[in-house]
Amino acid sequence: MEKTLSVAMKPKPHKPLSEERAAKEEKPMIIDRLISKITELESPIVVGLDPRLSQIPGYLKDEEYEKYGKTPTAAAEIFYRFNKEIIDKIYDIVPAVKPQIAMYEQFGAVGITCYIETIKYAHSKGLIVIGDIKRGDIASTAAAYSDGHIGKVNVEGVYFPGFEEDFITLNPYMGYDSIEPYIGNCQNNSKGIFVLVKTSNKNSVQIQDITTSDGRPIYEHVGALVSGWGKDLIGRHGFSAVGAVVGATHPSEAKLLREKMPHTFFLVPGYGAQGASAADLKGVFTKDYIGAIVNSSRGITGAYELEKYKKDYAEKDFAPAARAAVLDMRKDLQSII
Amino acid sequence: MEKTLSVAMKPKPHKPLSEERAAKEEKPMIIDRLISKITELESPIVVGLDPRLSQIPGYLKDEEYEKYGKTPTAAAEIFYRFNKEIIDKIYDIVPAVKPQIAMYEQFGAVGITCYIETIKYAHSKGLIVIGDIKRGDIASTAAAYSDGHIGKVNVEGVYFPGFEEDFITLNPYMGYDSIEPYIGNCQNNSKGIFVLVKTSNKNSVQIQDITTSDGRPIYEHVGALVSGWGKDLIGRHGFSAVGAVVGATHPSEAKLLREKMPHTFFLVPGYGAQGASAADLKGVFTKDYIGAIVNSSRGITGAYELEKYKKDYAEKDFAPAARAAVLDMRKDLQSII
Repeated sequence: MEKTLSVAMKPKPHKPLSEERAAKEEKPMIIDRLISKITELESPIVVGLDPRLSQIPGYLKDEEYEKYGKTPTAAAEIFYRFNKEIIDKIYDIVPAVKPQIAMYEQFGAVGITCYIETIKYAHSKGLIVIGDIKRGDIASTAAAYSDGHIGKVNVEGVYFPGFEEDFITLNPYMGYDSIEPYIGNCQNNSKGIFVLVKTSNKNSVQIQDITTSDGRPIYEHVGALVSGWGKDLIGRHGFSAVGAVVGATHPSEAKLLREKMPHTFFLVPGYGAQGASAADLKGVFTKDYIGAIVNSSRGITGAYELEKYKKDYAEKDFAPAARAAVLDMRKDLQSII
Repeated sequence: MEKTLSVAMKPKPHKPLSEERAAKEEKPMIIDRLISKITELESPIVVGLDPRLSQIPGYLKDEEYEKYGKTPTAAAEIFYRFNKEIIDKIYDIVPAVKPQIAMYEQFGAVGITCYIETIKYAHSKGLIVIGDIKRGDIASTAAAYSDGHIGKVNVEGVYFPGFEEDFITLNPYMGYDSIEPYIGNCQNNSKGIFVLVKTSNKNSVQIQDITTSDGRPIYEHVGALVSGWGKDLIGRHGFSAVGAVVGATHPSEAKLLREKMPHTFFLVPGYGAQGASAADLKGVFTKDYIGAIVNSSRGITGAYELEKYKKDYAEKDFAPAARAAVLDMRKDLQSII
């Protein structure tokens, strides 16, 4: 059994939001901030923070196992340290990070604390945070997810911060009932959502590519729905706070969706480890070469283990290796821009 | 700010699983256990544990606010007390409870601890637990959800219990890649899943009812997929550990799916508060009057506020009122069986 809970992973006492923050905040739309940062940094890149114990350097893990035993608390502590070191080395060259909540949630409450602390740390470095949570539910259930993740948590009129992601990903299978409860927080709290349209995985075809009676595949119908759901939330750059997840592994589908959804910003998984190259990404950008942000997770955070970087970076230089991988990815993307 | 974390909501030190439990356990299939319990109790009912502060008696809340302030910790403490009292009064007349994770997750780490402690308490009373988590993701992400919720959490070969639901709900939009990582835990850990097919909400038609090129709606295609995904996991009662969520608010669709999916057990939302009556449920059962379990949440846990029960039950008798509502629901369902 573990010796103790780590200091970092103990849930913090909850501090209510100030009156100003509890009220509607006048902030620029987050989608506008994201686009400005992408343009400024010339970097349409989001780094996925999906830590896996098997891909974290042994020396770092051993130090935490020494303190907390081989326990979920140690795992949470390891993930937090790993994320912090990565963030420290990339926050000035990418606009955003995308923690994948599953990797944290598997460890229960300590994992959730690690996820929340990772978001806080990313914010402290000026990064935009896309929470990859892929929630999908309706009515008061969806409202609970919405307030918890991108809104304010209400305990009898006292408001607390929740997870505080800037964007979250959502699943559309249940229809607008599973999106509508997030729209209010997008509007009043300056947040955004990315709704799954065409995902990067092989079996995405099983449902998303079924041909409908009008000849179009399901993902096109979903794209049209998502586009409609976002029509009242378009910012000054012409893109909506309601974005779409469109995989890079399906270049022609992505190109078609790009044409049909001119006001929808794309979150694009599938580059690097999942097999898509820069050439596959041409279609996801608009003619001004904005309109999308491309994710890479293992290709960045696990760069120190890749043939390409191994010779120049020792295990303990995983964070500088991640920075090198981001710079290479940026160059790769700029080649098509 | 809250004064202190409550004892119940502090994350517990993690205790590894015994060698026997960490190895493959020889247990009867959970779907068989569920069906046996339904038959034994003549009660195809699952009580949804979706607590909302606005629907919990004031006296109970005030006691916890006194101790912890109006904080997320107090909310988690209140939910746990409320759930415990409900469970104490219904565990002998229903086979299962279905906590909705969103209601807990909104409060962060303390909420997740409350969710896990609720599951533990339900298990201590012999109840089967269906975790309504509606997760949907792929590859190592889905594997993390799978091990965390229905498997064993691995920290360098030391195994820990995770959330320990018996069943969880899943979203199929990403295809089999988002189901396959759960199949192993269904097999080796005797667990089950319910995959969304046709949900009870109004806007479910937006994607689920789109007519495909062969004239069938999407939900029929999804039903066929789910049925196929479960074909190697059929238990001695003829039903698979891979079940389906089919809403009671669409009686004719449910009847059709029942006919097309003879080996798929249905989790049926929509009865009561959402508007479906016993008559609407005829189609979801097989000719032997098994094949489905019907959920009611607010109709049970909020019974003390309903006109029908208010006169006989004071606020502090919310749990006896819940029991009365279960017995009435059972009678109602038996009228069609």
